[in-house]
Formats: sequence, structure tokens, C-alpha cells
Amino acid sequence: MAQQERAIRTRQAILRAAAAVFDEYGYEAATIAEILARAEVTKGALYFHFDSKEKLARGVLAAQVPQGAVLPQPFKLQELVDVTMAVAHRLPGDPLLRGGVRLAVEQAGQGALGDGPFADWVELCTGLLVEAKAQGEVLPHVEPAATAELVVGAWTGIQLLSQALTRRADLERRIAAFWAQVLPGIAVPGVLPHLAITEHRGAEVVTAYERATTVRLV
Amino acid sequence: MAQQERAIRTRQAILRAAAAVFDEYGYEAATIAEILARAEVTKGALYFHFDSKEKLARGVLAAQVPQGAVLPQPFKLQELVDVTMAVAHRLPGDPLLRGGVRLAVEQAGQGALGDGPFADWVELCTGLLVEAKAQGEVLPHVEPAATAELVVGAWTGIQLLSQALTRRADLERRIAAFWAQVLPGIAVPGVLPHLAITEHRGAEVVTAYERATTVRLV
Repeated sequence: MAQQERAIRTRQAILRAAAAVFDEYGYEAATIAEILARAEVTKGALYFHFDSKEKLARGVLAAQVPQGAVLPQPFKLQELVDVTMAVAHRLPGDPLLRGGVRLAVEQAGQGALGDGPFADWVELCTGLLVEAKAQGEVLPHVEPAATAELVVGAWTGIQLLSQALTRRADLERRIAAFWAQVLPGIAVPGVLPHLAITEHRGAEVVTAYERATTVRLV
Repeated sequence: MAQQERAIRTRQAILRAAAAVFDEYGYEAATIAEILARAEVTKGALYFHFDSKEKLARGVLAAQVPQGAVLPQPFKLQELVDVTMAVAHRLPGDPLLRGGVRLAVEQAGQGALGDGPFADWVELCTGLLVEAKAQGEVLPHVEPAATAELVVGAWTGIQLLSQALTRRADLERRIAAFWAQVLPGIAVPGVLPHLAITEHRGAEVVTAYERATTVRLV
């Protein structure tokens, strides 16, 4: 294994361990000692990559938006739906994502970690809505940034409610229900029937994405 | 002052102090010593009312739903909007509500405090939607419980986003924008134009409620 590749793997192992500890204990109660024990790397390696708990948290948060990766779609509204459904599908089984969500929710407005990833998600969704608007997919009153903020805010809260009531067992169903409720106020009538918003959409787009990216690596 | 009245005031003072400490430090880092110092009551008085940190947190959470109090409205959808706007209006200036929101968000799915107040809010909103449905205000596909969960989830997340991005300065505007986006998918076309969903609605309904309840007490 080349040295650079080893460094990337070590960094990933540390981030996964940190995310698991943040997910379990929250930011305040998490300790570097616990992260070190789980990552199974040397103290030197950990401090080489992240020299404070805050930097570990920022690393976990920065790893969140790439988890929204999906394949491009002809309808950009579909791609927006796909991002939200893919994250809903990945979240329960992905410690890195879970740790990031707990940090973002816990630290909202607490300052230490800034805006968290909210601003990044809003930017991603705004971009897709701007494209959707340019393609004539959305109703005239829709403002991309405002709708993006609504989507990101609602997604986050629906996730919390699902976590509180069913430990996220019904998260995908709830996000699909959210889209069923709000899309008629966003999409033009001609596009609406072409959008797939079932609760299985997350599994489908994640599988399609993984297949496509695996092929590319071979 | 009658003894009972004094006990109620002491209990309220303790709850307000506890909420402020939870709002500032979160559940884990909050201490009974700090709550005691802020409440300016004796240790005996505090333990008479709440004998653990968990009971203090439950007391703060239980005080949350009554803060959604608004006057009854002919359209029950208006009353539902009013509850969400009243809480958005009260939240930034009300330590008891702020402490409860931080606890609910932080503890979602962490177990110690159960479902938090999510289930209570969902119940309140479901009741209003059942009445709205009985009065013919909602579209045929609307299921009261599912729509109530969507509203509570979305409200919570929009609040978090507002807290992260603007320290809640734009919370009322964001909740009003949420309603503008989703009400066309909930209300029948004949009712929709009669619903007031401006960002000033919260201030109006809180003022009206306070005037009505003050008169009643005189």
C-alpha cells in the first residue's frame, strides 16, 4: 500500500471512530481517549491528522454532505428528492453520518462548530433548485434559496421526530410523506407525475450510485 | 400569600432556573448546584419539588405544550397555524421554552427522557386537524396524525436551522414560509384564502391571548 493511501485509510478510521463516539456521547462528553481506543491507531497518528476534539468534530461534519451523493437525473427536482432519500436511507446504518447529524443538531447555535453542515446542505439544494427552475420544472413563485432552507430544515426535524418516536425505523416513509405533501406546491403540474417519491427511492438510488461508482473504479 | 400559592411560585422559579441552565449547558453538563444558585431557593425547597435532575428536565419539558396556548378560532386550521406561530413568537424570549426545546432536541432518541414533548405536540396538532377535517376544511387525502407529525417535525427542524443560521432572528418568517408552502396541499381551496399566515401572526395571537386571559383573572 502506498504511503498516501495508508494515510487516507488512517484518517478515515479516525473519523469513523470519532463519529461513533460523538453519536453515542455527544460533543461535550466525548473524549479523545475514547476515540483513540476505538480507532486503533497510535496517539501520534491521531494528532497528526486532527490535533483537537474540535477538529475531529469538524472533520465528521465535513464528511456529511458527500454522503448525499446520487447519480444525476434529467429532472433536477428528482435529483433533489434523491439526495434527501439517499441520506435517509444511509443514515441509520452509517456511523459517520449519525455522528455528524448528532453534532449538527446538538451544536446548532451553540457557536463552537459554526453553522455546522446546514449551510452546506442549503447550498447543495439551492443549486439543484436553481437548475430545476432554469429547466422550467418549478412553479413561478418558488425561490430556490428559500425552498432549499425549508427542505433542509424540515428534513432535519422530521429526522429528529423519527429518532424520538421510532429510533429512525420510519425515517424513509416520513421523508417520502413530506415530499408528497410539499411537491405539489413546488413542481409544475406537468413534471409532478414523473417524480418518484416512494419510500423505497432511497434504497434504489443508493444501489444505482454504488453500482456506477464501483464500475468506474475497476 | 397563601401557602399553596407560595409553593406554586417556588416551583415556577425552580423550573425557570432549571430551563435556563439546560438551555445554556445542555442536559449532561447541567448541575443541580447551578440550578439551585439561579433559582434562589433553599436546597430543601428544590428537593421537595424535584428530587433529581431527570425530574427537573421532565418538569421543563412538561411546561412546553401549555406555551402553545392560543384563543379558539372558527377555522381549526387557523388555530393550528396560530399554535405554531405563537410558539415561534414566544420561543426567543422565553427561557422555559428555550430550555425545553434544547432538551427535546438533544434527548431525541437518547432514551433518558422518553419521547420528550414530541408526542404531546403531535397529539395537540392531530386533535386540531381532526376537528378541521370534521368541519370540511381539509383536502380528502389529509390524514390528521400523519400531517400533524409532518408539522411538528418540520417546525422543529426549521427552528434548528433558524437557530444555527440567525440565532432565531428569522424564526417567525421561516414558519410563515413553511405554511405558505404546505397549506395549499392541506386546506380546501375555499378555506385557504381565509387563513392568516403572515410572519406577524404570532405576535397578534399572543397579544390577543394575553389580553383575554388577563381580563378573565381580574
